This record gives sequence, structure tokens and C-alpha cells, in this order.
Amino acid sequence: MIAMDNLMDKIVALAKRRGFMYPGSDLYGGVANTYDYGPMGVELLRNIKNLWWKYFVHQRADVVGLDASLISHQKIWEASGHTKGFADALIDCKNCKLRIRADHLIENYLEEHDTDDLLNLIEAFDKGQIEDLKKAVETKKVEGLSSGRLDEIIGIFKIPCPNCKKHDFTKVRKFNLLFPVQLGIVEGDQSLAYLRGETAQGMFVNFKNVVDSTRVRLPFGIAQLGKSFRNEITPGNSVFRTLEFEQGEIEYFFDPDATNWETLFEDWKKDMWDFATKGLGIKEENLRWREHSDEERSFYSKRTEDLEYKFPFGFKELWGLAYRTNYDLTQHQEASKKDLTIVDPITNKKILPHVIEPAVGINRLLLMVLVDSFKQDEKRTVLSISPKLAPVKVAVFPLLANKPDLVEKAKEIYLDLKSKISGFVALDARGNIGKRYLAQDEVGTPFCITVDFQTLEDQTVTIRDRDTTEQVRIKIENLYSYLSDKLKI
Amino acid sequence: MIAMDNLMDKIVALAKRRGFMYPGSDLYGGVANTYDYGPMGVELLRNIKNLWWKYFVHQRADVVGLDASLISHQKIWEASGHTKGFADALIDCKNCKLRIRADHLIENYLEEHDTDDLLNLIEAFDKGQIEDLKKAVETKKVEGLSSGRLDEIIGIFKIPCPNCKKHDFTKVRKFNLLFPVQLGIVEGDQSLAYLRGETAQGMFVNFKNVVDSTRVRLPFGIAQLGKSFRNEITPGNSVFRTLEFEQGEIEYFFDPDATNWETLFEDWKKDMWDFATKGLGIKEENLRWREHSDEERSFYSKRTEDLEYKFPFGFKELWGLAYRTNYDLTQHQEASKKDLTIVDPITNKKILPHVIEPAVGINRLLLMVLVDSFKQDEKRTVLSISPKLAPVKVAVFPLLANKPDLVEKAKEIYLDLKSKISGFVALDARGNIGKRYLAQDEVGTPFCITVDFQTLEDQTVTIRDRDTTEQVRIKIENLYSYLSDKLKI
Repeated sequence: MIAMDNLMDKIVALAKRRGFMYPGSDLYGGVANTYDYGPMGVELLRNIKNLWWKYFVHQRADVVGLDASLISHQKIWEASGHTKGFADALIDCKNCKLRIRADHLIENYLEEHDTDDLLNLIEAFDKGQIEDLKKAVETKKVEGLSSGRLDEIIGIFKIPCPNCKKHDFTKVRKFNLLFPVQLGIVEGDQSLAYLRGETAQGMFVNFKNVVDSTRVRLPFGIAQLGKSFRNEITPGNSVFRTLEFEQGEIEYFFDPDATNWETLFEDWKKDMWDFATKGLGIKEENLRWREHSDEERSFYSKRTEDLEYKFPFGFKELWGLAYRTNYDLTQHQEASKKDLTIVDPITNKKILPHVIEPAVGINRLLLMVLVDSFKQDEKRTVLSISPKLAPVKVAVFPLLANKPDLVEKAKEIYLDLKSKISGFVALDARGNIGKRYLAQDEVGTPFCITVDFQTLEDQTVTIRDRDTTEQVRIKIENLYSYLSDKLKI
Repeated sequence: MIAMDNLMDKIVALAKRRGFMYPGSDLYGGVANTYDYGPMGVELLRNIKNLWWKYFVHQRADVVGLDASLISHQKIWEASGHTKGFADALIDCKNCKLRIRADHLIENYLEEHDTDDLLNLIEAFDKGQIEDLKKAVETKKVEGLSSGRLDEIIGIFKIPCPNCKKHDFTKVRKFNLLFPVQLGIVEGDQSLAYLRGETAQGMFVNFKNVVDSTRVRLPFGIAQLGKSFRNEITPGNSVFRTLEFEQGEIEYFFDPDATNWETLFEDWKKDMWDFATKGLGIKEENLRWREHSDEERSFYSKRTEDLEYKFPFGFKELWGLAYRTNYDLTQHQEASKKDLTIVDPITNKKILPHVIEPAVGINRLLLMVLVDSFKQDEKRTVLSISPKLAPVKVAVFPLLANKPDLVEKAKEIYLDLKSKISGFVALDARGNIGKRYLAQDEVGTPFCITVDFQTLEDQTVTIRDRDTTEQVRIKIENLYSYLSDKLKI
């Protein structure tokens, strides 16, 4: 077993060492909270995204895709409420100048302290209404509390700065997370747009376009995979929280008179759970559902639940599921002054559909896959990634790198497999064979094939299984069917 | 045959009507030069991107992938020369206030006028050196000419404004195309970064990271698919030129002492041509190579050629191939003060590799596929897209939508095919069967399967071929093998 606090360091180190992800703009000292995905990372990311698309678009009968522009009209973000409400509450330590999110400061403090002790302090704080403060202490969550309430909590507990340990903060201030961009290039003649803060608005503003240009009928979903942007200052536990991030969102539109939202909600919960466990191969014991409290939930949402994963830094949100009513379409209908209702072809009823929204952070899924599959003992480090997701499907080695016969034969097998297997296949003829196995273990390659002297005599190779390290010898002609069976390709 | 000037209008209309692409931020009046890809567009885009990745990463033995951050350090763009040189030369019409790219204004004028007449005017212009002006007239290209030279050409020919037809322009001014973004949210405490202007720099700044974290050896390539951004004002012929666009770039690193660049260049030309013709199924007669002239080529490039496609608005660049020497790595080595050389494992020679760069605009490939496959006669409009790329692989219809037996059977076949076929499979039970065929023709669905009354008796269905409109009757049990053979899946 690996101590949890070491685990993140080990994963971050492995990710850089083996080409999963590098700090963004590394060569120039980096841009905080950005990452570049290397050769292994990009394959893993692609595999996760393609599986998501297959699972939620191609395999379903009721979802179509969308890919909206990242640069989008300011009015979209006014109507959605983002220009006003999409903000972090930040405070500065007056002593050491640390800038930090107030909710993170408080929640970390609540996590680390005894609930009863904290409740006693709250009770002693005699300023009328304290139910919301007690609830925050009990749930260790402050979402939904006003800036003033956050100031009060910090004051009551005399929460110290996590950096310099002094308790000397500015008041909480809210800062908007949207990135503005100026279109056009002449001063005074530019127009303001925003990099999208979420993919969801793309589905709402294109709702009518999709209905008009396809054969969909309620209930149906629109799915989108793509980047969103948030101007956050929070250091992010590797790719858990970054300035730009890949989202996978679905807006599932339905008529609440025809479809029971509670049943639909449960169906989506099941699909999300299945994707995480059967699709991505994550251990069930590391996943849990958490329902948002009334305070935490957006005012228009009737129910919100998060699927959380047990990261080394605690259970954290992976995937939100929210019943958003028809709040979003209503907002856009009012702001655009365009009719967004659709007419039921049978009853002729005008409907402004409600939505249930499953929204996941793809980069968080990637980090989860790394964490969940990481194994280390005295001998080796292994990523036991599901073969479906493994960045390298098969690696082929000549036993010795300086024997042209072996190298030639290995190359021949490699090229044959590469032409048949969907995904990345590797050839490695460098250095000690033991080190080559260990290198493939560290990137989670399910199978390594070695070409040795016996190969030249009887046309057999060894196949080593990543998880058991056991080797079997097999005829080259049976190699592909053996692998396609094991890799489920 | 369709008149060329109508063709773009027809394609733009079809693209919106059938869910390929909608103008971006449409609901709020649009953001110029942005597009949202609808259900059909996103599938086509995905198919093109996945084929590119398969062809240039998975099927090759010498290329690995990368996915770098869109938000990147300002020093990357200083070192690359983009903050200074990445600019459009614009002029304004003083009369009607039209703002236009000077090169486009001039090149369109040169295209439309007789070369000899123009050369006579140049000869009459007696201000010393006129060789570059004559060359511009002969090649109809002005790339590489200074702002002053552009002013002179506009003056010599008295080129009129394409909008108001007056000849009354401001002087040419250069405007940078990079989009700045401010990181951090407190005034005076922000840091400047840029949305990347190309994906290529991601490969250069991560060159050492990739070498250090993988087993690659020279010669090898790093490939990237992803968005880039250019703050352009040019109206763009649908998705031909947009503010954000998807690039597919490869930096192929090699030691010029060990690898002959001219041979390598020819090999890449062949691979690009093959991808366009055999991969995407584009007609050879609509493609051509055009070599950049000395004036047009960047000073550090030893050869640049463009693969051009015959769009309805003329032959235009699709894919650039440039031998860039080691200019980029040299620039980053100097700016970052970090050693970017690698050591040859055999000779111990230090190498700062040279690169050949094939760079393609994925959205242009998509537009090309639509243009090249568009067919129309009195009866119907068809996109004869290669089955590999078709957004919908197969559509299943019950003959009549109001017969539950037929609908049930169609659904059963649909769900079975959906679980087996990689890609989007459609079920359509709405309206007239003829209209359903025509709708699928317009999105390029290779096969439509119809469930009729005979199906219920003998378990056969009809399959209609998109291109011939011929129908064959086939047993349901043989359906998948028939389709997988035809679709090459």
C-alpha cells in the first residue's frame, strides 16, 4: 500500500516521466494550471473521449452530438447568468499576500477540525440566525453562503492562512471566471465575446437548430465534448482543476408531462455509474453519490447529485447530474426574444422542454484512471488500466537490440499488428529487456511480445501479461486472434 | 452540372438545413467567422480527425501524438516571431468604411484582370526596381511584399473598393492576429498569455519533454490535432477561414546529415496526396500542388509547397508542407536559454534537429469533402461521401410509421446494428418514405434499410444504395456481414 499523500506525488512524477502530461509552457517556466498531454496522455485522453462518445451518443438511440464554437457571443453568457453569477469568492492574506478561494480555505479547515468543537464556537457566536452556519460545519460545505457569511465563519474560527499561519485576511471579494476576448483588431472597434465557461450553453442556444435540422423527437439529448475555460487561481492537484478543461456534457430534453423526471434521473445515475465502473474499469468502492443540499443547489434545480471519486486529496466531484427544469431555455427565450418552444406532433401542445444534465470533467476521468490503476511494489510500478483505455495496446521487442535477425523479425510482427489493431502499437529495441518491460508497465501496456532466438526457429513468440507478469509462448500466426480476444478489439 | 457560384450557396444552405454547421451564436445574431457543428457536422468532423490520427499516428512507425494547452506563455509567441510578424495587412475604404485585407483586395483584382494589361501598367510605373511587382502580377500572389509595396500596387492599378467601387483607401496597416488573454482576475496583477495561433509551437516547446519521456529516436514526428485561433476580419467562405479552427500538424524531426530532406519532402507529399485521395476519397483532378516562390516563402524555409483544392471560390490552400530547417528549435533554444540538442547515441554528435512540417486545416478538409461529394439533379441532392467518413453509416426505416409491427421490427434491427457498427446509425419512422430516403441522401448515408410487410413474413429487408438508388432484398441474418463488407468496417 502507498500512503495517500505520496500517491499524488508519485502519479505526477510518473505522468511527466512517461509522457502522460507535462506542465504547460514548461520551457518558459510554465503557465500555472495548464498542462500539455504527451504521447501517452493524448492516447489515454482520446480513448476516454471516444469511449464516452460511443457510450453516450453512438450506442444510444436518443442522443445526437454537437461541437460548438469556443468563442461565443456575450449575450449567451448574460442570459445564462454567467456574467453575473459565475464567480469565485477570493480573499487575500494581508501578511503573506497569498490569494485563495474562501470556500476552499474554510472547507479544508472544517475537514481538519472536530465538528462538535466547531459547533460550540458557532453556538457562542450570538448574532441571530445561525442555522446555515451549523449546517456548513456539519456538512463541511459552504456552497450557497454569501460573501458576508464566509467572512463571519473565517472570523469565528480565526482560520489561519495556510501559508504563513497568520489570521489577517481581507474581506471576501467575488471575481468572475469567464475569459473575455476582444474580436476585431482595431481599438475602439472591437467587440467583446467570451471563451465559453461550459459546453452546456452551446446545446441550449442550438436547441432549435438541432430540432429543425434533424429528425429528433422528445425525449432526446444533445451531447458535446470539448474545451471550456475558467479564469481560476486555485492550484489544481495536477489536471483536477485547470484553466482550460475538456467537458463531456449532455442536455437531455424532455416534456415533464410525458416523462417522469425522477425515473429519468435514476436512469442517468445508472448509466453514469456503469460508464465509470464497466466502461472505465474503476473500482466501485472508490465511487460514491452525494446529493446537494438545498443551500448548495442552484435555485432552479430540483435535484443535483455528484458522482464523486476518492482521489488522494479526498472524495471530489467527477460528474454532476442536475435536473435544471427549463430554466436555461426560458432564459434564452427571454433574452433572444425568439420562440424556443416546440410543438408536440400529436397533441399540438407547445412545450419548452425541461432538461436533465449529466456533466463530467474528462481530465478528471483521466486523473481518476491513473490513480485507480496505479500499483507499486518493491519490483515495479504498474498502471493496471483497462485494455480499452491503455495508451499502448501492445509492445513488440526483439530480445537483443544488436541482432539484426531479431530486430527484423520484431519489426515485421510490429508492422503487421499495427495494421490490424486499432490504437497505438509500440516497437522498442533499446537497452535491457527487463527495463523495456518495466517501461511498458509504467504506461499500462497490457501485453508485451518478445522475439527471441526460438522465434527464428519455430515462428513462436512470448507474450507477457502486464498484470500477472506471466509469459506464454504462442505461434505468430495465432498472435492477432489471441490479442484481439484479450483486448476485446 | 451546378454553376460554381451557386454551389457554395447550396452547400451552405444544405449544411444548415441538415445539421452540419450553423452560424456560431446564431440565436443572438451571430459572431462573424464562427460556426457550431451540428449532429451531422460533428460526426463528419470526428470521422475526418480519427482517420487523420489513424493514418499519421497509429499506422506509422515514427510518429507520436501530443495535445498541448490552448492558453500558452507569451514568451513562446515572442520566440516564434508571432508577436511581431503574425499580422494581417489591412486597409480601410475611406468612402464606405469597408475594412479588408490588402492582399485579398489585390489578388482578387489580379485574378480578374488580364496579365499583359497589368504588366504594361507596371512597366509604365517608373520608380526603379519593379521585378517583384511584375512577379506578383504574373503569379497573382503578393505574399512577401512590404506594406509600402502593397500601397503602390493599389495605387498603380487604381484598384476600386469591392463594396462601393471608389478608389479611396487608407494606407496599409499591419494588425497582429494573436488573441491575448489575461490570466488572473485582479487588475494590475494579471499576466498576459495568448491563445495559440498554431499548434506547431506546442511540438517545438515540448520537443525535449517528448524525447525524455518516450523511446523515440530520430527521425520521428510529433503530431497534434487541436484548435488554433486567429483574430481575422476576413469573411470566410463558410468554414474555410474562421476565428478558431482545427489544425492537424506534424513536426517531423530529423538530422539533415543522416536524412536527405528532399527525399523526405517527396515522401510527405505522397502521404498527403494519398490521404486526400484514398483516405478522404477526393477526386484527383480537383487537387494540385503549388510551390511557393522565393518571395512568398518564409526566409528560413528551404522549400514550401501547398496542396490546393479547387473550391468553388478558386484553388485554395488546404495543406502546407514546409521544410523549416531548425529555425524554430534555434529560436526557442535562444529564448529559453535551455539546451534543446539531443545526442546521437552512436556517434555522440549533438544535434539540433531540422523539421519538415505538414500542416492542414481540418475544417477545410470538411468543407472540401462536402464540395467534392455534392451532387444534384432534378430528382435529388446527394452527398457521395466515402462510407468511412459518412456521418450516418446506416439508416433503418419502417415502411409505414403507423404500423406498430413494422416499427417494432425496425427498432429491433436498428438496435442490433447500432451495437455492432462503429459510428452513428439512425432510425427514422417519420413521414413519407421517399422523403426519408431524400433526407438520408442529403447527409450522405451510404445505406438505407427498409422494413416492410414482407419482412414480417420472410425475415428479409430491402437495402438501398445511396449512389445507385438500387435496392436489393436480403435476409436480416446476413445484414451485418453485407454492410460490414460494403462499409469496410
